[in-house]
Amino acid sequence: MANELKDLTKRADDYSRWYNELVVKADLAEQADVRGCMVIKPYGYAIWERIQQTLDERFKATGVQNVYFPMLIPKSFLSREAEHVEGFAKECAVVTHYRLKANPEGDGVVVDPEAKLEEELIIRPTSETTIWNTYKNWIHSWRDLPLLCNQWCNVMRWEMRTRLFLRTSEFLWQEGHTAHATREEAEARAKQMLNVYADFAKDILAIPVVRGVKSETERFAGALDTYTIEAMMQDGKALQSGTSHFLGQNFGKAFGVQFVNKENKPEYAWATSWGVSTRLMGALIMTHSDDNGLVLPPHLAPIQVVIVPIFKGKEIEKFDTVLGALADRLRAKGIRVKYDNADNKRPGFKFADYELKGVPVRLAMGGRDLENGTIELMRRDLLEKETVPFEGIEERIPALLEEIQQNVYDKAKRRLDENIFSCDDYAEFKERVKQGGFYLCPWDGTAETEAKIKADTQATIRCVPYGYSQENLGVDMVSGKPATCRVLIARSY
Amino acid sequence: MANELKDLTKRADDYSRWYNELVVKADLAEQADVRGCMVIKPYGYAIWERIQQTLDERFKATGVQNVYFPMLIPKSFLSREAEHVEGFAKECAVVTHYRLKANPEGDGVVVDPEAKLEEELIIRPTSETTIWNTYKNWIHSWRDLPLLCNQWCNVMRWEMRTRLFLRTSEFLWQEGHTAHATREEAEARAKQMLNVYADFAKDILAIPVVRGVKSETERFAGALDTYTIEAMMQDGKALQSGTSHFLGQNFGKAFGVQFVNKENKPEYAWATSWGVSTRLMGALIMTHSDDNGLVLPPHLAPIQVVIVPIFKGKEIEKFDTVLGALADRLRAKGIRVKYDNADNKRPGFKFADYELKGVPVRLAMGGRDLENGTIELMRRDLLEKETVPFEGIEERIPALLEEIQQNVYDKAKRRLDENIFSCDDYAEFKERVKQGGFYLCPWDGTAETEAKIKADTQATIRCVPYGYSQENLGVDMVSGKPATCRVLIARSY
Repeated sequence: MANELKDLTKRADDYSRWYNELVVKADLAEQADVRGCMVIKPYGYAIWERIQQTLDERFKATGVQNVYFPMLIPKSFLSREAEHVEGFAKECAVVTHYRLKANPEGDGVVVDPEAKLEEELIIRPTSETTIWNTYKNWIHSWRDLPLLCNQWCNVMRWEMRTRLFLRTSEFLWQEGHTAHATREEAEARAKQMLNVYADFAKDILAIPVVRGVKSETERFAGALDTYTIEAMMQDGKALQSGTSHFLGQNFGKAFGVQFVNKENKPEYAWATSWGVSTRLMGALIMTHSDDNGLVLPPHLAPIQVVIVPIFKGKEIEKFDTVLGALADRLRAKGIRVKYDNADNKRPGFKFADYELKGVPVRLAMGGRDLENGTIELMRRDLLEKETVPFEGIEERIPALLEEIQQNVYDKAKRRLDENIFSCDDYAEFKERVKQGGFYLCPWDGTAETEAKIKADTQATIRCVPYGYSQENLGVDMVSGKPATCRVLIARSY
Repeated sequence: MANELKDLTKRADDYSRWYNELVVKADLAEQADVRGCMVIKPYGYAIWERIQQTLDERFKATGVQNVYFPMLIPKSFLSREAEHVEGFAKECAVVTHYRLKANPEGDGVVVDPEAKLEEELIIRPTSETTIWNTYKNWIHSWRDLPLLCNQWCNVMRWEMRTRLFLRTSEFLWQEGHTAHATREEAEARAKQMLNVYADFAKDILAIPVVRGVKSETERFAGALDTYTIEAMMQDGKALQSGTSHFLGQNFGKAFGVQFVNKENKPEYAWATSWGVSTRLMGALIMTHSDDNGLVLPPHLAPIQVVIVPIFKGKEIEKFDTVLGALADRLRAKGIRVKYDNADNKRPGFKFADYELKGVPVRLAMGGRDLENGTIELMRRDLLEKETVPFEGIEERIPALLEEIQQNVYDKAKRRLDENIFSCDDYAEFKERVKQGGFYLCPWDGTAETEAKIKADTQATIRCVPYGYSQENLGVDMVSGKPATCRVLIARSY
């Protein structure tokens, strides 16, 4: 296993390379043999499982139920919703045949031309079409509503330029799809799920986010409104970390999902959809990690505390007794602990490896500690060590983990707050945005200005943010026309 | 929702139809719009999640870690292992293009001929090939072994005749893939995982199984040995419920996975793979359910206890106080409870619906119960009702759930034991096997006899079973040649 810490590029030298190396060196993921796809390795998957588990509980607490819909979608479904097909038909994996056969002219197997499908099938890029085609059979009366479904699955969008977790052709995600009797209820649900994402990002991932609503240009294909959470990476770029869409009656109409309302009249169902993906892994890495590797917030970390004995040969038995019991006492408190007494790796290697993997707390004990009744405690967020009494150490850990969680969040929140700037001068904006950061700028609401900003600076309107003033707007910094709102602009991943 | 109980076909009238209807009426799954695929509905998925969760804990307890590998496999990978390609290349979904475009001659979208892949990609029917092509980079020394990975994912095998859960083109499963330094260790792991499956089937699903090893004909394509658990359905047919394969060095050699062993010599890694799928849902349904619907063993049931108040109008407030508190007391004991006070369905409808859905215990309370301090308790396995004191009812429930779990298992075990027969007369066998049941018969070990039995009776050799005598074998009932073992023969799903 190539976990050598020493080779990790420093963020200041090459941020992008630092990220790519860290993902591989911390054993999170690697490029697969299929172009643009990834293999998620055990440690990376353990983190993803924690994301899944904690988010899933929060979904269920709002009444959402899990389901599973097929991964293949008939090609014609995509064309049913006019905007949706524009957004998703372009970059699809297309299944055209259902059989291979021995190559009549040599080795291996070839596609059997006899086994051509009548209608091609698409590997789902997202599932609105197939789900709403099914909802048609599930929804007849207002009594059947709301319908609140979610699925955890893989999706495929053919991407030309890929990066592990941030942009891959196949990725894992959850997609929620709800149907409602009224417009108000659907809009409220779309906003509710955005808040679930934002709270989850804060409480578990320790990532502060800006909530807001997308411009028309940046909306999900087929949505009336797209709500987003935008996180700031350490290089000042934005990473869209979750979106929730109010779909109006677009899919209800496209797939004929009508119900009889309380007034006994037929009406089309109102829809939302919302999703987060393995992209969150990228957000997590780029928000907290440092030149020594990952920094995981304790609420998320698959291993919260690692205990490492420093021993020679048979000494291990003494450590196993003392530290094994400590591990058990910590587990009894609900803490995720690893006791690493493997004898095929030196303590120094282990230390570097757990630093690289971002384990929040490391406890190490050598022969002298054992004699003195002490243990060495290292917290990953500050990289600070101290020697503390062994007795009662387990009482100290839960509060310490909370302290680390808070500290990791506070650090990210400070960075976010310190790098949001108001700006209404375009020349100044163009110069400053190169350095990263989020810019609050007056906008005239037209797609033309939006396109010009993007063309000039590569920065995009991330959202009309919530929680920032929309008063005294003044004029659009590009067109000089009266501004209709203040938007958040940034370069992004 | 079409949950009408009254229409459920009786098992005695048409077992196959009873199954198909029950899957749909109990809201477990339905046919998808894509041929041969299924939609798993919320209640069905909740059961699958319980299967996943309980099995996953057992895998992890043996040291297995979860991972994720891409769903697309380059066509050429399949040809690398000679037997494997024979077994899996035939029925594949083949991705040949990566883009659609607007139809230049009319509506909708068409496959863009410019976007043809250089090499076709296959949607994984199973992942040995792609995983072992990656293991090549992960395994260098005996210190890297054993490598114990598992993934929960979707797979696709193009099927012409499908049935919900039992045989669908896309299905959900887990596939474990381990690599070892020695033959002995790999064989032991393959057997260990079979035991994990068998114990899980018994403890959680309440399904007794016969463990054994497959004949060469029935082996996994590329395996040296396939171990299986075979369950008996109520119609006496076998359902293969999980398999574990000892793959020898076949994949190690095919993908060049070599390691340096303790003697410092290069050696090919030894492999196992093992899986269970949404087929288990079929096994579960057909083992326990009755003419009133599903019967779920309490250890698995997403809802273990349902509480139904029988009320008119405003009375509900009194019930909510009393029964809401009971629900909380039960939850505090770790019991999965649903308190159903919905006012848009009659109690009679709810009773039938929860019976159909197999909820193990139903508690119902009406006005008289409230006055008398009693509650009605119904257990789903026996369909027996009794009126019991309300006070302290929560103390009684945990033991009752255990009793139901045991009873459900015992009933299935009795049926299995009573329907395993020894038989060494082929004429008799041919007649009796039509009625279902498992037959222990002496076999000469040849593929010829095996094929003849299948052709004559549609029954197949399920396995050489463990736990049944292999002494005094006598002669093969078909060929009259000396038998080499006693095999278990049955018709199967």
